[in-house]
Amino acid sequence: MQKSSSASSLGPGGLDLSQAFFKPIQDTAPPSPTKRHTKISVIGVGNVGMAIAQTILTQDLADELALIDAKPDKLRGEMLDLQHAAAFLPRTKIVASLDYSVTAGSDLCIVTAGARQNPGESRLNLLQRNVALFSKIIPPLAKYSPDSILLIVSNPVDVLTYVSWKLSGFPSNRVIGSGTNLDSSRFRFLIADHLDVNAQDVQAYIVGEHGDSSVALWSSISIGGVPVLSFLKNQQITYEKETLENIHKAVIESAYEVISLKGYTSWAIGYSVANLARSLLRDQRKIHPVSVLAKGFYGIDGGDVFLSLPTQLGRGGVLGVTNIHLTDEEVQRLRESANTILEVQSQLGV
Amino acid sequence: MQKSSSASSLGPGGLDLSQAFFKPIQDTAPPSPTKRHTKISVIGVGNVGMAIAQTILTQDLADELALIDAKPDKLRGEMLDLQHAAAFLPRTKIVASLDYSVTAGSDLCIVTAGARQNPGESRLNLLQRNVALFSKIIPPLAKYSPDSILLIVSNPVDVLTYVSWKLSGFPSNRVIGSGTNLDSSRFRFLIADHLDVNAQDVQAYIVGEHGDSSVALWSSISIGGVPVLSFLKNQQITYEKETLENIHKAVIESAYEVISLKGYTSWAIGYSVANLARSLLRDQRKIHPVSVLAKGFYGIDGGDVFLSLPTQLGRGGVLGVTNIHLTDEEVQRLRESANTILEVQSQLGV
Amino acid sequence: MQKSSSASSLGPGGLDLSQAFFKPIQDTAPPSPTKRHTKISVIGVGNVGMAIAQTILTQDLADELALIDAKPDKLRGEMLDLQHAAAFLPRTKIVASLDYSVTAGSDLCIVTAGARQNPGESRLNLLQRNVALFSKIIPPLAKYSPDSILLIVSNPVDVLTYVSWKLSGFPSNRVIGSGTNLDSSRFRFLIADHLDVNAQDVQAYIVGEHGDSSVALWSSISIGGVPVLSFLKNQQITYEKETLENIHKAVIESAYEVISLKGYTSWAIGYSVANLARSLLRDQRKIHPVSVLAKGFYGIDGGDVFLSLPTQLGRGGVLGVTNIHLTDEEVQRLRESANTILEVQSQLGV
Amino acid sequence: MQKSSSASSLGPGGLDLSQAFFKPIQDTAPPSPTKRHTKISVIGVGNVGMAIAQTILTQDLADELALIDAKPDKLRGEMLDLQHAAAFLPRTKIVASLDYSVTAGSDLCIVTAGARQNPGESRLNLLQRNVALFSKIIPPLAKYSPDSILLIVSNPVDVLTYVSWKLSGFPSNRVIGSGTNLDSSRFRFLIADHLDVNAQDVQAYIVGEHGDSSVALWSSISIGGVPVLSFLKNQQITYEKETLENIHKAVIESAYEVISLKGYTSWAIGYSVANLARSLLRDQRKIHPVSVLAKGFYGIDGGDVFLSLPTQLGRGGVLGVTNIHLTDEEVQRLRESANTILEVQSQLGV
Repeated sequence: MQKSSSASSLGPGGLDLSQAFFKPIQDTAPPSPTKRHTKISVIGVGNVGMAIAQTILTQDLADELALIDAKPDKLRGEMLDLQHAAAFLPRTKIVASLDYSVTAGSDLCIVTAGARQNPGESRLNLLQRNVALFSKIIPPLAKYSPDSILLIVSNPVDVLTYVSWKLSGFPSNRVIGSGTNLDSSRFRFLIADHLDVNAQDVQAYIVGEHGDSSVALWSSISIGGVPVLSFLKNQQITYEKETLENIHKAVIESAYEVISLKGYTSWAIGYSVANLARSLLRDQRKIHPVSVLAKGFYGIDGGDVFLSLPTQLGRGGVLGVTNIHLTDEEVQRLRESANTILEVQSQLGV
Repeated sequence: MQKSSSASSLGPGGLDLSQAFFKPIQDTAPPSPTKRHTKISVIGVGNVGMAIAQTILTQDLADELALIDAKPDKLRGEMLDLQHAAAFLPRTKIVASLDYSVTAGSDLCIVTAGARQNPGESRLNLLQRNVALFSKIIPPLAKYSPDSILLIVSNPVDVLTYVSWKLSGFPSNRVIGSGTNLDSSRFRFLIADHLDVNAQDVQAYIVGEHGDSSVALWSSISIGGVPVLSFLKNQQITYEKETLENIHKAVIESAYEVISLKGYTSWAIGYSVANLARSLLRDQRKIHPVSVLAKGFYGIDGGDVFLSLPTQLGRGGVLGVTNIHLTDEEVQRLRESANTILEVQSQLGV
Repeated sequence: MQKSSSASSLGPGGLDLSQAFFKPIQDTAPPSPTKRHTKISVIGVGNVGMAIAQTILTQDLADELALIDAKPDKLRGEMLDLQHAAAFLPRTKIVASLDYSVTAGSDLCIVTAGARQNPGESRLNLLQRNVALFSKIIPPLAKYSPDSILLIVSNPVDVLTYVSWKLSGFPSNRVIGSGTNLDSSRFRFLIADHLDVNAQDVQAYIVGEHGDSSVALWSSISIGGVPVLSFLKNQQITYEKETLENIHKAVIESAYEVISLKGYTSWAIGYSVANLARSLLRDQRKIHPVSVLAKGFYGIDGGDVFLSLPTQLGRGGVLGVTNIHLTDEEVQRLRESANTILEVQSQLGV
Repeated sequence: MQKSSSASSLGPGGLDLSQAFFKPIQDTAPPSPTKRHTKISVIGVGNVGMAIAQTILTQDLADELALIDAKPDKLRGEMLDLQHAAAFLPRTKIVASLDYSVTAGSDLCIVTAGARQNPGESRLNLLQRNVALFSKIIPPLAKYSPDSILLIVSNPVDVLTYVSWKLSGFPSNRVIGSGTNLDSSRFRFLIADHLDVNAQDVQAYIVGEHGDSSVALWSSISIGGVPVLSFLKNQQITYEKETLENIHKAVIESAYEVISLKGYTSWAIGYSVANLARSLLRDQRKIHPVSVLAKGFYGIDGGDVFLSLPTQLGRGGVLGVTNIHLTDEEVQRLRESANTILEVQSQLGV
């Protein structure tokens, strides 16, 4: 499935026109095998996977893009649809296969595959099916790309990132969950929209579990570098804590709102993950709230748990976690997040 | 629906935090109304419309993007999903509404809306329903953006571009159909894929009706500026005409193939239309095979008909049609294309 | 000088090949005069002006670029050198002239022209010559582009921005000096370099007069949204004020260092000004430390004075000044900056 | 000289603030040494070298940029001037040194260094001095980056590319001269300017020696894929051969014109070389007229000679030469070009 062969009849009688059209020069040597290019694999070509793949392509982040899915028709259709745009894009090799060998030598593997909830199915049962699914995805990825970074997008992202870490045997700096990177973007948009500023000028983090128990870090919100809470204090503007909580609630609700309106989310997660891919592969050393092995931070000591913290990302994956000051209440909430995730993990028996 | 207001509680007690955060300087004056920004409207937020909207956003082609659709939930969901990516993109104002007033002052209106074929419905009946649909879309677009360019993507694109021209009352240089721009891209990809060259280095046109009767211009195919047919002749490489026709067939089939595999096409048409939007709005004066008023070209004189010819596009819309030499057979096919379209138009009574 | 005409002999015997190559379609109409494109003029094609012009070109910020200088040879040479790159860049119309009519209809006029200090010449005398120079530059710019934004880069930038405001008669929101935008960038680089983070993740402002009396705003420095001073306090890390002052000194010295090493600065100011151009013309509503009419801020009330404050920039020019909290000492220094500038202005008699 | 250390006093009392600000996560492992990033070295920081370096930086083509020059002050000044723009650019590591070890592990080495002609100096003598200079540049580049591609820009480019090939011991596909890539761009601009089309839509090659004996390939000129000579013939438009030669003359003269007007060329060569760097490092497989080992092409058999031919470039360097048909006269001219270069080489004794 890797290559469209419909043009193979261009040369008459089996002639390879390519060899007629180009002639080699003398005294050449093949390129060194160390001359690697940048390769990204996307596992799962549903709405999320394809929004990620297409954004990566438009933003020219990879020299080769490999797509994997269990549905051969859908997979080939998506591959062809991207390939047909070749004349409008920088050249990127796009391949697709049911077989994980197509991912060999990836720098980054992005996993978006996931089981869907059956009617009446418990959350735990769904998760167990997803763990079973990951046990078929992660080991071949790790085998074919032993030096790659794993970026997990499937939900529940924190538990599945932990599962991927265990299944891959990778060091923790090379297993990352997309976590609250998108939640934080929604947070920044809501604040920017209200103030009519550029969302890129808004610094604001949501950390912890990706989901309802996420923690908004109020003290670190700043606009163009100006801390908002200090600003309000200096301007003697009083506000109620409830006001702040309402914004956080709006962030959590906005994901549900998009799903209820259009049936799924795709574009924002696509941009969000492409943004992480760029920081990782181009060694940008930028700080993103993503899901990382959090044991030892803020008194989280109940076990190996992944949740989102402001993390510096670069070519080596996780470079470090920002040693940000949290209020006692924020620390407390973070620990509760951790315990919730650990409890789920213990039920899974992973 | 234009603006998310969930953050409006940011300021306590009705305080407008924005006014507290920014102070005006003295002696200012409002900007001149001639200081316009670039605004694009996309009509129809299905797979095609959204692939176009998202690519326009990623490629930073507009300062304002307006979405229109008849389904309020889907429309709001798509708007929010794009807005949530604000932190990852250059600032673009994104609005959406059921009401065409939201498109006011557009530089470019891209129409992707269209009725779907009902089981057992004749092609003519479907077209009549689409004409009825366009009679509700085009007049308000023309009213709210009288200086805009109309770019029609809905199928059958040639007839609907003609219909849009009539309904809008716009001069012909401001009504364009996406036509065979994508067919040509698929053609270029197939040739590039076979020769392992960059598709951007392949010049090749498919012209005429967008569809099965399209005409491949063999004599104009060149790779990096080297005409392929002359090359084959100079190299004394013989080929059969059937070989060339097979490539053209592969192009026509590739659209059907994608639809049969994934259910629709989206990514390639998205890139293709964003590419046209760029040439138009940034006055690139590039040549694209798009559907334009073709009366008077190549002996097409049976009436007002739109079909694809290699057209130079810029800020004024259609700047001119490349006076390319066609073989007698190619001219004959083009006229047949024109007659087919004219016959449909006469049945429609438009 | 506007157009290279060396190819005019392409058509034989006076034939206009363009008219043979392209044919108009029927029923067209000329584009509406309101269909404007984006035009930037750069006054002065020295090292600074050309670094700005070339960066604007590479970043595709304008549809038309007009260059003005008093030296015809240098001017034509720079225009041709940029034009020769046309095949590698998005199409941009590049024109150049000694005559200001070439700037007509600009959206943004960037002034980099300035007299050089003669041996033994006093700073005041140099400034008086620059004011005389500006009296020949600003009025024709204002005449030919009455709705444009003026962006002053020539030094001393604060006084010359004031002078430009007076000479143009423009409202204050459309007269901006590049001010401490570059100083702040150097500040951010030094901090980022030390911490090995991405400089785009460092928020830090230098405000006030562009030059030795500039004011570093320590309280607003943050890394990825984490305020540095609070962080140090929370971590119970003590530091001496002198340490902070040394960084500010390093910023001031770094400009002198580049000049002493290579004779002038060019690349960083080029990127800095292109960055401002983008925020202005693409309505980015981002916050930049630039020189604006500062009367009324922080108790500056001695007269009309321009100096740098964190300013939100958009299509309308200055949208507002961030109401940032300064310490008493910072306010005091800012007022001293203002007084220094006002004193110079009174000596000039402007 | 590699790193600015002026911020090293940020942490008080020798404290490493970076270690306080970021904390490592548990169970990490260092990245595999095969995780390479893209590194480009530029040798020579004169006008040409810096225009190349700055364009590479703006176009985000490298993760690391190394500058080499013999003048320490100029070198450090240029490095700092680029570094100061960090806040406006994607993060790129910029280093500079007199010592070639700073280039270690480069993917691409771009050589712009060259001796200047002394008054009254013969061309041969100048060339001998340049060969002596290259004998100090190429061996250390080859030693520190044995897998890199060498891209020679210094003039006379064809002879110096041959010299670099000999001195490096590299296979011929990894030694390339910028050759007539810029001449061809000027050719395309002149044609595009005349026809008011986008220069990117003009395909046209100048091949052979970079300089006065270069050969314009008239038969391969096409506009948007339409061959111009066939078009003229089909339209029964007659033209005189002299007309075409005048355009070629204008191309040759335009380089001299820029030099006479501004003293040197910089911007166009900067964009031209960045364009080659992109095709090479991002494996674009595009066709460029560049200087390659031409022995065996078009009957060139007098010895090892480099001159420009339409060449497909990718990650492996030269992938092949387009087997373009030349007229007998064009072949004759090409051979004369080759002989001229070979004669110079025999005088040099290289």
